[in-house]
Parts: sequence; C-alpha cells; structure tokens
Amino acid sequence: MRKLILLSAFSLSGLAPASVSAQEKISGFNPTSASTEIKLEKAMDSLISPKDQQVWMEFLSSRPHHLGSSQDKINADYMAKLFREWGYDTELSSYQVLFPTPKTRLLELLGTKKFTAKLEESTLKEDRTSGQKSEQLPTYNAYSADGDVTAELVFVNRGVPADYEVLRKAGISVKGKIVIAKYGGSWRGIKPKLAAFHGAIGCLIYSDPLDDGYGAGDAYPKGPYRPGDGAQRGSVMDMPVTPGDPTTPGFASTPDAKRLSVAESPTIMKIPVLPISWEDAKPLLESLQGPVAPDEWRGGLPITYHMGPSVAKVHLKLAFNWDLKPVYNVIATLKGSELPDEWIIRGNHHDAWVNGAADPLSGMVAVMSEAKAIGILAKQGFKPKRTIIFCGWDGEEQALLGSTEWVEDHASELQKKAVAYINSDGNSRGFIHGGGSHAFEPFFNEIISVVKDPQTGVSIRDRRYAVEMVLGDRAKRTRIMGNKTIKLSALGAGSDYSPFFQHLGIPSFNIGFGGEGSGGEYHSIYDSYDHFVRFKDPGFAYGAALASTAGRMVLRLANADIIPADFTTLYSTINGYVGEVKTLADNIRIDAEHDIAMAAEKLYDLARDPKEPYVAAEVSAKVPFFNFSRLDNAMVQFKTAADSYKKLSAKAEQLPEAKRNELNNILFQAEKSLLLDKGLPRRPWYRHLIYAPGYFTGYGVKTLPGVREAIEEKNWAEAQEQIGLLSGVIEAFTAEIEKANAVLK
Amino acid sequence: MRKLILLSAFSLSGLAPASVSAQEKISGFNPTSASTEIKLEKAMDSLISPKDQQVWMEFLSSRPHHLGSSQDKINADYMAKLFREWGYDTELSSYQVLFPTPKTRLLELLGTKKFTAKLEESTLKEDRTSGQKSEQLPTYNAYSADGDVTAELVFVNRGVPADYEVLRKAGISVKGKIVIAKYGGSWRGIKPKLAAFHGAIGCLIYSDPLDDGYGAGDAYPKGPYRPGDGAQRGSVMDMPVTPGDPTTPGFASTPDAKRLSVAESPTIMKIPVLPISWEDAKPLLESLQGPVAPDEWRGGLPITYHMGPSVAKVHLKLAFNWDLKPVYNVIATLKGSELPDEWIIRGNHHDAWVNGAADPLSGMVAVMSEAKAIGILAKQGFKPKRTIIFCGWDGEEQALLGSTEWVEDHASELQKKAVAYINSDGNSRGFIHGGGSHAFEPFFNEIISVVKDPQTGVSIRDRRYAVEMVLGDRAKRTRIMGNKTIKLSALGAGSDYSPFFQHLGIPSFNIGFGGEGSGGEYHSIYDSYDHFVRFKDPGFAYGAALASTAGRMVLRLANADIIPADFTTLYSTINGYVGEVKTLADNIRIDAEHDIAMAAEKLYDLARDPKEPYVAAEVSAKVPFFNFSRLDNAMVQFKTAADSYKKLSAKAEQLPEAKRNELNNILFQAEKSLLLDKGLPRRPWYRHLIYAPGYFTGYGVKTLPGVREAIEEKNWAEAQEQIGLLSGVIEAFTAEIEKANAVLK
Repeated sequence: MRKLILLSAFSLSGLAPASVSAQEKISGFNPTSASTEIKLEKAMDSLISPKDQQVWMEFLSSRPHHLGSSQDKINADYMAKLFREWGYDTELSSYQVLFPTPKTRLLELLGTKKFTAKLEESTLKEDRTSGQKSEQLPTYNAYSADGDVTAELVFVNRGVPADYEVLRKAGISVKGKIVIAKYGGSWRGIKPKLAAFHGAIGCLIYSDPLDDGYGAGDAYPKGPYRPGDGAQRGSVMDMPVTPGDPTTPGFASTPDAKRLSVAESPTIMKIPVLPISWEDAKPLLESLQGPVAPDEWRGGLPITYHMGPSVAKVHLKLAFNWDLKPVYNVIATLKGSELPDEWIIRGNHHDAWVNGAADPLSGMVAVMSEAKAIGILAKQGFKPKRTIIFCGWDGEEQALLGSTEWVEDHASELQKKAVAYINSDGNSRGFIHGGGSHAFEPFFNEIISVVKDPQTGVSIRDRRYAVEMVLGDRAKRTRIMGNKTIKLSALGAGSDYSPFFQHLGIPSFNIGFGGEGSGGEYHSIYDSYDHFVRFKDPGFAYGAALASTAGRMVLRLANADIIPADFTTLYSTINGYVGEVKTLADNIRIDAEHDIAMAAEKLYDLARDPKEPYVAAEVSAKVPFFNFSRLDNAMVQFKTAADSYKKLSAKAEQLPEAKRNELNNILFQAEKSLLLDKGLPRRPWYRHLIYAPGYFTGYGVKTLPGVREAIEEKNWAEAQEQIGLLSGVIEAFTAEIEKANAVLK
Repeated sequence: MRKLILLSAFSLSGLAPASVSAQEKISGFNPTSASTEIKLEKAMDSLISPKDQQVWMEFLSSRPHHLGSSQDKINADYMAKLFREWGYDTELSSYQVLFPTPKTRLLELLGTKKFTAKLEESTLKEDRTSGQKSEQLPTYNAYSADGDVTAELVFVNRGVPADYEVLRKAGISVKGKIVIAKYGGSWRGIKPKLAAFHGAIGCLIYSDPLDDGYGAGDAYPKGPYRPGDGAQRGSVMDMPVTPGDPTTPGFASTPDAKRLSVAESPTIMKIPVLPISWEDAKPLLESLQGPVAPDEWRGGLPITYHMGPSVAKVHLKLAFNWDLKPVYNVIATLKGSELPDEWIIRGNHHDAWVNGAADPLSGMVAVMSEAKAIGILAKQGFKPKRTIIFCGWDGEEQALLGSTEWVEDHASELQKKAVAYINSDGNSRGFIHGGGSHAFEPFFNEIISVVKDPQTGVSIRDRRYAVEMVLGDRAKRTRIMGNKTIKLSALGAGSDYSPFFQHLGIPSFNIGFGGEGSGGEYHSIYDSYDHFVRFKDPGFAYGAALASTAGRMVLRLANADIIPADFTTLYSTINGYVGEVKTLADNIRIDAEHDIAMAAEKLYDLARDPKEPYVAAEVSAKVPFFNFSRLDNAMVQFKTAADSYKKLSAKAEQLPEAKRNELNNILFQAEKSLLLDKGLPRRPWYRHLIYAPGYFTGYGVKTLPGVREAIEEKNWAEAQEQIGLLSGVIEAFTAEIEKANAVLK
C-alpha cells in the first residue's frame, strides 16, 4: 500500500521527468489540449516503475502458464485483481477452445544405427524454473495430426516452395517419406503444410545451431542461445487461412456455437509434425544419403548435409488429447468521459508455451505499467475523452485464440466503436520498432521523437535512425540521411493484432524494442525470469520505455481533438506497393521469356553436371500484360483527396465539437473501406486488401496480397480480377477521404 | 613403338575427327592458309590421346616431386626425354634458388587444456601414395620465419584489412599475440604479412570445414573434400611485391648473381607461420575468450567462434633449413620455318607440393599432348611459321621460381621475340575459363567455338555460355542473352604467366577447365592420382579438351599471317576499368561525406550496444575530386585508333610478306607500351599498368592497379600521379596502333 499512496501524491503540476524531451505541438490537439496532454504524459512517465514490472514478471513467470494450465488462470486472476485495484472495470472473458496436448511422442531412427530421440530439455541449475517438469508442456507442435508413420527421411531445407523445386530437379520425391526441415525462413506451419501437399507422411522441424544455437552465440547457460537439446514448441495450425479456434472458423467459440469436428477443420495439420533439438536431429541427418545439399541449405552441424532419402527408416509416433480448454482474456475498461463509444484498445497476450518471461510477459508487464499509471491519473481526476480498454489475451501461442474469439464475438460492436488497436508481444533492450497502419506513421514518429532511450538519453527515434544509418549501405544512407522519419513496417501475422487489423480493418499497431537482447530461449523452458534478467532487459529499462511509448499512443488517441491520420503517407506507402507488384509482374514476365528461350536452346541441359541426377522443369508459360489502368486512376484520385485533406485539416482541432465528432467518425472508420467483404481468395477471414500474412510464407507480410500472390502463383485471371477489387477498395477509401473533406469545406 | 607408327600413318587429308566443328574463316589467316590451318588442327586433335595423359600422370605423380626432391629431377628428365623423342630441341634450364624446408614444427596450447597439434595428414588405404611419408614435405608454409613464440591467441577471421578494423572497434589488439586466421578470402601470404604489420608475433592459418571440408561436401576418401587432419601447404613469400628467388629480386639466380641474405630479402615473411588442419585448430579456437565473432566470421566447426584473446597461451616453434635447391625447367623448342625469331611460348609447371596430380600435372600432361601431336605433325612435314617453345616449369609452388628466374635471365631476348605466352595450371571436368590480354578475346572465342565439350558435344564456348545464363541473375541474362562471347578474365597472379605478362608485357593467357571437379585436395598429400581419376577428370576427357584448346592457340599464333589482335575489345575492356575507378573514387568520396556527417551527429555512438566494447574510428578525411581529363582524352584517341585499325586491317592477311612482317612486329610488341619502366609504387617488378595482383589481396587481380590501389589506400596525391602515368601508357599504346594504321594505309 505504501507505494500506491506515495504515487497518488503526484500532481499534474509536478516537475517533468527526465525521460521525455520538451514538445509543444501535438498533431490532432489544439494548443490548450496539447498543453494538458503533455503534462499528462509526463505524469504518466513518472508513474511507470521498472520495479513494478520486475515484481509482476517474477510472479507471472514463476510457473509454466500455458493455456489450460492452473497457473494460466492464476495469472489471469492476478492481473484482473490489479486492474480492478487500479480502477478498471475488469472481466475475465472466457471461451472454450480446442487445444491438443501430447499423449505419445516417439521418434526413432531404425536400422543399424538405431537411435531414439530424447525429446526433452535439460534442467539447468542456473535456471531456477527449468526443472518444473511436471507442469511443463513437452516439446511438440500444437495441431499436429495424430499419427504412427515409418518411412525414409528426406531433408527439405526450410521446407518452402523453392526448396521443393531444388528437390524436384535432383529427382528426389518426398511422397510417402518423412521430411526433416530446418526452423526459420518461413512460419513453422508452412513446413508441414507444404510437406503434406507434396505427399510426405510426417514432418520433423529442428533448430539448426547455425541459426539458433552455438552458431549464433554462446549456448545457454554460458550465453543466451539455444542449447543442444533445446527445441522450439509452437503451433502448426494453418493460420494464414484463419486463426482462432480451428473448430469455429470465422465465428466465436461461444457455448452455443456449432463446432466443426477435428476432421472437418480446414486448419488442423493433416500429417504428424514434431519439433526437435539439433542433438536429436544430428543422427537423423547423418543417416541421409543422396546428393550433397546445396550450399545455402547447409547448417552448423559438423556433418555434410545430404538431401536424402535415407536408407534407414524413421519411425514417428504422435498422439494427442484433443481437449477443449478455457481461454481467460483479461479485459479492463476505463470509460471515456466524452466519447465513451470510441474505443482505444491496448493488448498483449499473457499465456506462454512454458514460463514465457520474454514471450509474452515482457510486453504484458509494460501494458500493466501503462494501465496502472493511467488508472492512478484517473483517480487523480484525469478522465480520458475516449474509452480505453486494456487486454491480456490468452491462448495466443496456439493460434491467437483468445483475441480472435473475443474479436469474432464482439465484431459488430468493434466495427462501430474501435478507433485503434495497439499490440505488443515481447520486448528487450535495443531499438524501437513499429508496424501498422500507415496513415498513422507521422503520429508514431511524433511519439518516438519524445520518448527517451534509457541507455543513451536521446529520443528512441534518434537512436533508431542512428542504427539505420550505421547499418545501412551507401544507397540507404544517401536516401535517409537527415530524414529521421522511421517507417512503420507492414504487418503480416504472428500476434493478436491480426483479428483487429486484417479481419475487421481497425487501425492497428505492433510495437516493441529489440536488437540488443537476442537469444535462443524462444518457446523453450529457458524463456525464464532468470534468462530474461541476465540477457534481455536487465533492470526493465526498456520495459519502462515501452510503457512510455505505448502509453502515449493510448493517451493521445484517447484524448485527441482530431484523430491524427495522415492519408498522404498512406498514399505514398500504397503507391510504393503498387510499383512493387508492377515490377513483380514485369520481372516474372522477363523470367518467363528467359526461361522459354533458354529451354529452346537447351541451355539447362548443357549447363548441368551430367554426372548428377537432374529432372528438367516444365517450361514457363508466357506472362500476359495486365491492365493496371483502373488502379492507376484510383491512385491519382486517392492522392488528390489525401493532399486536399492535409490542406483542409490544418486547423481541424479548432472546429466546433459536432463537426469534430463527425470528422473523427469518418477518420477512424476509413480504414474499414480497405476491406473486401468476401475476403482474399481461399481465405475469406483475411479481408484487408493492403496487408495480409503470406499464404505460403506465414508470418511474413504480403502487401496488396490479392494481386501479389496471384502474380506469384501465376494465376493470371485471378491477378487481373484482384487488380479490379483492389482498385475498388482504393476508390471506396478515397470516397471516405472526400467525405472528410466535405465536412471540412 | 607400335602406337607411334600407327599415329605417324595419319595424313593431313584424313577424316575430320569428331571433336571440332566445321570452321571456314580464321582471323589472321588468308583463305588458303586458313584451310591448311584447319586441316592441321584436326590432325592435331586426332593425335591427342587421353590414354597418353593417364600414363604420363601416373608416372609423374607416383612419388612426391617437390622442388629439390629426387623425383622432381626424375620427372624433368622423363619429360625432357619425351620432348626430345618428339623432335624438340630440349634442355633442362637450371637455377639455384632458396627453398626453406622444415627442421622443427611444434604447436601447443598451454594451460589447463594442454594440447599438442598433430600436424600430420593420415595415410589412407584408398589413396595408394598417401603413405609415402619419408618423401612428403610436411605441412608448412614456405618462407615462414624461424621462430619460437609463446603468446595468447586472437582470431582474425580471414586476416584481411577489414577484419583488423572489426578487431580495432572491439578493442582487441594482436600486438604481441599469435593470430589464427581462416584460409580463403585472400592469398595466404597476405595473412601473416598483415598480422606482422599489426604487431602479431606468430600466425596460424587453418582450413575451416565450412569452406574446405565437410561443409563443402563429403570428406576424403568418402568424397573429394579435405578431411579433418588435412592441411594446406603453401608459400607465404610476399609475391605481390616480387615473385622468384627472394634473394635475387628482379634478376636471375645465375651462378654469378649477387644474392641478398635471408635477412635482407624484402619478400621473406618476418614472423613464423604454420598451416594447420581444423582438427588441430579446434582446441585453439575453443580456448578463445572475448566477444563472439561477427556472423560472417563464423565457420563450420560446432563451436561458438570468439575473437579472443585466449587466456591460455599458445606455443609455436618453427625452424627451417634455408638451403639452395636447383630448379629444373624443361624447355623444348621447335624452330619456326619462316619467322624463327617470333616465339610462341606454352607452359605449365611440373613441380608439386606433394604428388600433385591435379596441381600441376593435369595441366602439364595437356602441354605434353600438344607437344607430342605438334612434334608428330612436324615430323610429317608440317613446319610452324614461328618458333614454338614448350616449357615445364619447376619451383612454381614456392614463388614461380623456375619461370621467373628463366624470364629474368632471358628478359631482353623475350622482349624482342616473344609473341605470346599461354599458361595452364591444373584442369578438371567442367567449363572452359580463360584470362589474359583482352586484345586477344576474339581470338580466344574463335577457338573455343570450335573445340567440342566431351560431355555434351556442343562447343566449349556454348557450354560455358549455357552455364553463365543458367547461373546468371535476371540482369546478367538480359545482358548476355544471344551473345555467346566469353569474356577473358583479367589476370592477377598465382601462376607462371606473371613474369611474362606483368613483368615483360608479353601478351599472355591462362586457361583451363573446371567447375565439375571440385574437391579439397589442394596442396595436400591427397592431391594424388587416385583422387584425380575418381573426382577430377575420369578418363582425361578434359585433359584432351585442354590440349585441343591450348594447342590451337599455339598453332594459330604460330601460323597466323597477321597476329589476331583486336584493339577495340581491349579499348572497351580498359574503358570499363576506367569507369570502375571513377565510380570507386566517387563512392569513397560519398562514404567519407557520410562518415563525417555521421560522426558529427554521434550516430556511431548512438547505434552501438553500450554493453559491448567499442573503440571509435578516426573520422574520414574529405576526398578530393581527381582530374581525369588527360585519361579521358587518351581513351578517346585510343578508341579512334582502335576503330581505324579494325577497318584498315580487314584484309591485312593478303598484304605482301614484308608489310605483314612489319605489321606483325608492331602488333605483338604493342602490349609492352602498357608497361611503365619504373613499375608500380613500392613494387617495381610489376610494370603492367592495366593488370597486377592486389598488393593487399594477393592472387586477386587489381585492374589499373596504380590508380585503383592509390584510391583504395586513400593516397590522393599518388592517385593523381598514377592517373597521369596511366594516361601516358594509354597514349603510348595508341601511338603503336597508329603506327600499325600507317603501315596499312
């Protein structure tokens, strides 16, 4: 109690804390409200305590707290209790979701060099929670199929489409085989998906030490990197099609929901999949025969990597409990004083694969710092204009279960009320990074230019600019020198912003710090408090900086007179993407022309080594020219409207309240016009036509996904159709800007 | 004898052998002489026997035959006897040269994990000559200093200048330390040279398995790659300064020559240096402390690579016998019938580090095939117009000893008489590659377009074009599609063309096949007959193809009515280099501007990890603009003269003999005007201002070396001076072309 009393004594007229620079103007605020806002933000900073974060993390990471575990519920209750103490209207929002856990895991190499995989991470005396064996989820991939398969092994590198092309050329088929893939290069779920597509009957995914082990740096506990028996848990549900409970795709897992069976689910993997350590992988890789793998396939093990197949067979047996488990989302609301039906939502997940100090708690405790500070300020009399909702999501690791079910459950209300969603998911020492809706890039830059970097004292924007310059090549340095604007990256998938952003079109962000806290603890028992405070963010200085940054985003969006959207930035970003897809089409056309000519001249046959196996590819078809004229015209109109808005809105903060409200409603709803109701081809859940995760890459973003993926997949009719659909949403978005312009005229 | 009788029955009117395509016109030949030449070349092809090469190689590689060994002399005598049988006026040309061999080699890791390096390659039952221990040179670096040093170890990656910059930034000094460097990334001698420059007292060079071992492919004897105890012998004499006997720099090691002492020699290494296997390197690398090495430094061992220093000390003790040994060059001459004082010289070395099947015998046996075929043809009545000299060089491995001393000894005669030198140095299955004087690029292309590839039946030019296209990226494919001209590469150093080319300005070539016979036998006891016939060129089909190719080069140059020089190709090649050095200067200027601005804004300090050691670099000085006008003007005149020559020389083959002789003399002497008498800065032996080995890179070529290296080394005054000197030789070369034009007018 003592601490709370001390903090509540703080007043808005207090001294500016050291962590922010002076700032006078804030976009979207009139001079008076800006002045209040600046004081408020400084007050918030002074209430953010690294010590709090340390205490919370130590508790929350004290035992394994995956979805369905007893600690998961204990943690949700712990957080809910705190949010309530801080003055939030708090509920645990629960849904029953399908979450398979292992009953049987067996992996053997048969034949003369028989080997049985250990499939277990060691208890380390340097890591106090690593020995909590009875509560730990073993190493496995959630939503793997049950299976008992025995077959020869084939090495498929990262298991992405280009790798299968290499295997095809070498005459190696995975049909009826078990494949072994390296982690990395794609989202893990793509590997078994493509393996199954090519006829494989099982899939192993291992952590190669070159990427994730001694090749990256000293292994734990000497250094932060993955040890020899460390393996990466993780979901292999087909999330690029739909996240959320795989038995309720596109609708909430409410008690009355009509569920699909496991067999009917479109996103549960069709073959057994198991993640393994490099120590377990080594004997398997050593058993491979066949051609030596290409240079770029080779990893860090002291062996010659062959593509396979093996002569010796591999036996993989997996069985799971296909149980429903409850997710417990913590939802904490502080009602808006003026515009209660405009919601600013801030979230991070709280569930982990094991103890999850870095992933997710390092982000969760920042959310808690923000909530605590804003709660105290509210008790002191500050009332946000708009409603603020803090969320701790459960079941993120499996498939964004908690957030997706909640968003699906509240879709119509969110579509009406949600102004923005701000996500984080882990944090460490280093440099700010942010992805999100590009209309808010200037807004993001205003904030990062006032938050100070804990290690250097300059703004986190200046530090990020410094590293971009120092690591940049000559061309990049020439391009960005003197322009400290930090680009928002485009969001793909991989955390809880996806349902808000790509399903509902709510302007969204994903932010965090990193780059100086790398390690190999990801989804292992070593993502622990002990590991975190040694290697990730000792002293929680960057946890505090994240709270300062995200807290400002929340407060500014909650209190802005005018939602600070800048459509010229969005225009220029999308225009860049349009240029990219045109270049992509041109390049694919040139490549096809080259391929046709080279095949006609038999160059492939002449260039190959006649002593190596070789299977010629089918010759490319010619690539048509696409009609981009509607899109080009739409982009011109978009630019005109965006430029006009920029001019017309210069003093919008000083409009009468009714006008402002009318304008704001247009502004925060505008991004929804970039959705297409029927969604993307073959995955209707993803409706945003500007940003989506890659269908064949997973987490990695594909911008203008409908057009881009149709071209990449050489589906020419679909590409032309998608150019039309994209033009349509750009036209609709432009109409929204013109509505805003009409209000301002 | 039977075979010789059979072969001598062959007549010039015989059927065309299958290995060449029809060709009617040959540059430099009038229609009549072209027709004779074509028949002659076909006759030569039919006399080239893979079986001969196999027999010769089996004998020549039967025992270790390094410089000074008894087998070295036996081999020289064997070859000389054959050349004499084939009708050549043959001598063994001998010089006494300094060649140190090891007395003591000791390498230990001291401290708690004491380890003594094995320093020996294993006898393998699959390799019949690998057990000839008493005759093998042990693993060592020739021209290492004697030394007995004990110090901490530092890992310096490849040991090139950029690596020392990384160490400096991390605050790690090599002063008083022993360094360990990976082979590769530079010529080996650069590594101890730079280590000594930075204050190191000893140097180890190891073969990392990522580059040269299991990371490249299956290790010997399973596959062709270097096994765990394999090490790379080799010279570390400072050859980028001068090759040849280090005690007679720039003059021949004749009996009356005044020799420098070892201490006086400018090119003998100043610190002890030892090459080791990765098995010997591993405990040493594991002893390193300090920061983790950057990603791009890391190799294929299953350890985390640290930069050092080690806590435990390393003890390196080396002592050598500094003896004079005789080189035996085999020089076989067939006098020209019409122009005996115009010499076509063709050579390959015959000495090896151990048994040397691939390096050098695979090239030497091709030379012997050419000599045998041409000798038989001469006995049948064919007399070459010009004199042909076949050379088997000794002592190449140490420092091009045999060729350099011979060239220095015969410099004035060679300058008058040598038309061209054609070198090879090893050969294997794959694709033709050639480097050399760019005025002869069309000549080279005419030849490779008629020699057939043994595996595919198309010309070796078409096969090379195919692989360039297939491995090329989109831009390269677009650039070269349909243009099958194969570029000659620019020659740096690393084989016996260097004294002819870079010291005397004699038009030179270096050719061979490769790309499908890679392995890790280089400079080890496993470069054996057994290894060669399994992995390099089974059946010697490419040995025969090399003889067909180089033999044609010899015959065409020997018989041409007009030396087939094309100055427009030379112009466009040099003009490309001029563009490169201008871009280099511009880029260094931009980089300096960036560096100055970034340092002023403290960006380096902001971007670095404050927890890692860091020492700031000195800020760059501004880079001046250079006056390129004289060079630009010289290049315009060069182009004009070259274009005129091309037009005027269209029918030069039909000129009267006296005119032709006058013209030819200008043509083959022209390249000498690209020499500068006083040579390059700090290395007067290298006099060619277009091509030289890199002062800090070794083998790797630097084109326009005077200008380019001055800019790279930021010596602005020297850069401007060298631009003037380069302009001077271009002007002098242009004057030669104009003389030729005057003859033609």
